[in-house]
Amino acid sequence: MTPTQLQNVAEAADTIGQLLSQNDLAGASAVLTPLTVPEVVELVDRLSIEDAAILYRLLAKGRALEVFEALSPGTQGDLVQALRNAEVTTLFAEMDPDDRVWLLDELPASVAPRLLRGLTRQERDLTSGMLGYPQDSIGRRMSPEFVTTHPQLTVAATMARVRGALDSAETVYTLPVTDHGRRVVGVVSLRDLMGATDDALIGDLMHEAHIAVVSEDAETAARRTTDYGLLALPIVDGEDRLVGILTIDDAARILKQEESEDAARQGGVEPLRRSYLSTPIRRLVRSRVIWLLVLAVGATLTVQVLDTFEATLAQMTVLALFVPLLIGTGGNTGNQAATTVTRSLALGEVTPRDVLKVLSREVRTGFCLGLLLGLLGFAIAGLVYEWHVGLVIGLTLVAVCTVAASVGGMMPLAARAIRVDPAVFSNPFITTFVDATGLVIYFLIAKAVLGI
Amino acid sequence: MTPTQLQNVAEAADTIGQLLSQNDLAGASAVLTPLTVPEVVELVDRLSIEDAAILYRLLAKGRALEVFEALSPGTQGDLVQALRNAEVTTLFAEMDPDDRVWLLDELPASVAPRLLRGLTRQERDLTSGMLGYPQDSIGRRMSPEFVTTHPQLTVAATMARVRGALDSAETVYTLPVTDHGRRVVGVVSLRDLMGATDDALIGDLMHEAHIAVVSEDAETAARRTTDYGLLALPIVDGEDRLVGILTIDDAARILKQEESEDAARQGGVEPLRRSYLSTPIRRLVRSRVIWLLVLAVGATLTVQVLDTFEATLAQMTVLALFVPLLIGTGGNTGNQAATTVTRSLALGEVTPRDVLKVLSREVRTGFCLGLLLGLLGFAIAGLVYEWHVGLVIGLTLVAVCTVAASVGGMMPLAARAIRVDPAVFSNPFITTFVDATGLVIYFLIAKAVLGI
Repeated sequence: MTPTQLQNVAEAADTIGQLLSQNDLAGASAVLTPLTVPEVVELVDRLSIEDAAILYRLLAKGRALEVFEALSPGTQGDLVQALRNAEVTTLFAEMDPDDRVWLLDELPASVAPRLLRGLTRQERDLTSGMLGYPQDSIGRRMSPEFVTTHPQLTVAATMARVRGALDSAETVYTLPVTDHGRRVVGVVSLRDLMGATDDALIGDLMHEAHIAVVSEDAETAARRTTDYGLLALPIVDGEDRLVGILTIDDAARILKQEESEDAARQGGVEPLRRSYLSTPIRRLVRSRVIWLLVLAVGATLTVQVLDTFEATLAQMTVLALFVPLLIGTGGNTGNQAATTVTRSLALGEVTPRDVLKVLSREVRTGFCLGLLLGLLGFAIAGLVYEWHVGLVIGLTLVAVCTVAASVGGMMPLAARAIRVDPAVFSNPFITTFVDATGLVIYFLIAKAVLGI
Repeated sequence: MTPTQLQNVAEAADTIGQLLSQNDLAGASAVLTPLTVPEVVELVDRLSIEDAAILYRLLAKGRALEVFEALSPGTQGDLVQALRNAEVTTLFAEMDPDDRVWLLDELPASVAPRLLRGLTRQERDLTSGMLGYPQDSIGRRMSPEFVTTHPQLTVAATMARVRGALDSAETVYTLPVTDHGRRVVGVVSLRDLMGATDDALIGDLMHEAHIAVVSEDAETAARRTTDYGLLALPIVDGEDRLVGILTIDDAARILKQEESEDAARQGGVEPLRRSYLSTPIRRLVRSRVIWLLVLAVGATLTVQVLDTFEATLAQMTVLALFVPLLIGTGGNTGNQAATTVTRSLALGEVTPRDVLKVLSREVRTGFCLGLLLGLLGFAIAGLVYEWHVGLVIGLTLVAVCTVAASVGGMMPLAARAIRVDPAVFSNPFITTFVDATGLVIYFLIAKAVLGI
């Protein structure tokens, strides 16, 4: 999608929105026909779900399936609920098992049994099997349609297997090699097969396999696949037996969704199911209001702290002037630490076991930052107001930065330890926590230095 | 890398760190030998660069290259600077052209000419050609080593080409189809070739191609590759002629780096070159101090605003109590909007052309949020303090939330319009801006309602 195409889609979306509001289906269909599949996908991401459902019905059948498969699972879920039963049943039957499970995860539980009834026995068994794995595990995202080979098989025999599975297998470019007990003993690439003689044995060509266990977190398995540039990662059960594969394009889809969730949570927003422009305002409000309320309730702590020190404040109004600056700097320092540690956890660079290392690094980093800012704060506040005030500001900055960096760095690890998404202790959350602590530190230092 | 393996690596890193500090190279080598390549990579990400360089010299030659290729470009860059000239020249000659350019982008400009001199004429030309494309363009990340076919060629002839390029091509699984002028007219997959008869023509098998122009932003091209699950995206010059391909594993690497940068910037941190645990404290401080200083200078605005309204504050100290809560809520609302819009921009769901749509959505969303919080604030502050104060708090929340959501939503679009990374107007930046505005609104409303 080049910038020009994107602009065309934006204009087409506006036109179709107008035509649909006038019930002009023929007109909408005329705008839709010349668009490519990727353009229709972008279009659906710009329309309300009601308009998207009408538009979807205007697509030719083969094209409709292609468009549906390219939509995000959230959009698929909303669309399925806006379409009629019969339309959905056909669609559902034609999907790949892994895409089907992903879609079911986005639908209300009551819808699943109805859709599953529309499948053939074999497809239903495949799908139900995957639904048995834990939520967020790679078992729900892998594909059960793979081709395997054995160490004793020849290249020619393996190639024949590959040719037989061209239509059904999720990928034929990386093949898991299994022993007689279906345990993974290696992988072999189609490239290796093509470079070998027909009678060469797979056992001599195969490489050591990266694998994932079926109950493992989907994000971790996906990250491993892309980190090592594997076209397919074999997934095994608790006894090392092959049960599925994760292809790199599915890994990229998983990571895209996880990154979107992390980005949203770090900003204190619940992740949106669909694209921003196609989400109704009431859903935008709902995605934000809970956290805002939680944080506002948390912020009443600051009101209480200030209330406690009201006498001090009344005595020296000048102290009030620095409140936003001091708590702002504390919040920023905490955010920085939390952002860095959250990302490192997501990339697997840091684990909860590293808690003491992270703490020691953040205490030192926070102290250095506090010292730099504190000296500056001391000089400026001292020059503009008076040296006693400068001293209070300087000391507070040192203390607040050290505390904020430590708390900010620890929060994501604490979240992971209690098995919660580290991004849930979002930056706004840390800000609110650090605000109240920072105020207490400020007034204690002020009372000590100024003797009030 | 399973959790157990990760723990082993963490322990190995501690042990090796100790052994190296005692100059016990034999001991370190003994710990290193049983580790797999992925484990050594994790290990390098936990050691200081000096220790990593010593460790790297302890690896057997073939293994050393494998480890080096799996490191992030930032770590590669640091390692190259810590190793001796001769070691680096050999390493550099054995890398793929695209990985080589990525590494050069991480090195000081003075190092590049020395390294390029060590290459063969042909390799040097390939590398210099790629270095000619703009920074951050896909031209610097694509691979120039591809296999093509033509519409008039048969499947058998194409298969022969593929067999001839098994060792050199970046991928053989997706082939760009070009006409006589080297223009891309489609793509064909190896899977399609294997399913066809030997004398079938490529023209009858090929599909429409997604493409990218060589000067296009690397992130956009990478996003397209993973969004459509393409194993390889053909890259063309200004005249539609094929100049390279982007494989999906390289696309995933680009996105990983971009997402890390976005996550860091959104938290007001400069992205780290290497993993968190291997970054020295002084670099952590440097990655944070600039933004903290900028934000602290910005926050002096709040001191000035409060200074202006000091008389009002002195008259009603109760107003000071709500300052952190009000500006905190404003900052949070702004962050939420900025986070959502920044992510939508990164995913290509929103473009700068949508500015009015985004503004209208954020004004409405902010107003709804403000109304909900405002009513609550009115009730609580009214009950605890007095109804006049409650009215001030309520009205301020409505106004601040509306302004904050609008500003937060507009900032990323403004950044994109002036061709700056939207994440640069980070959440802390928006908080600081909204803080000062929020205070002005608060005191104006207070003066109007309370008549002071």
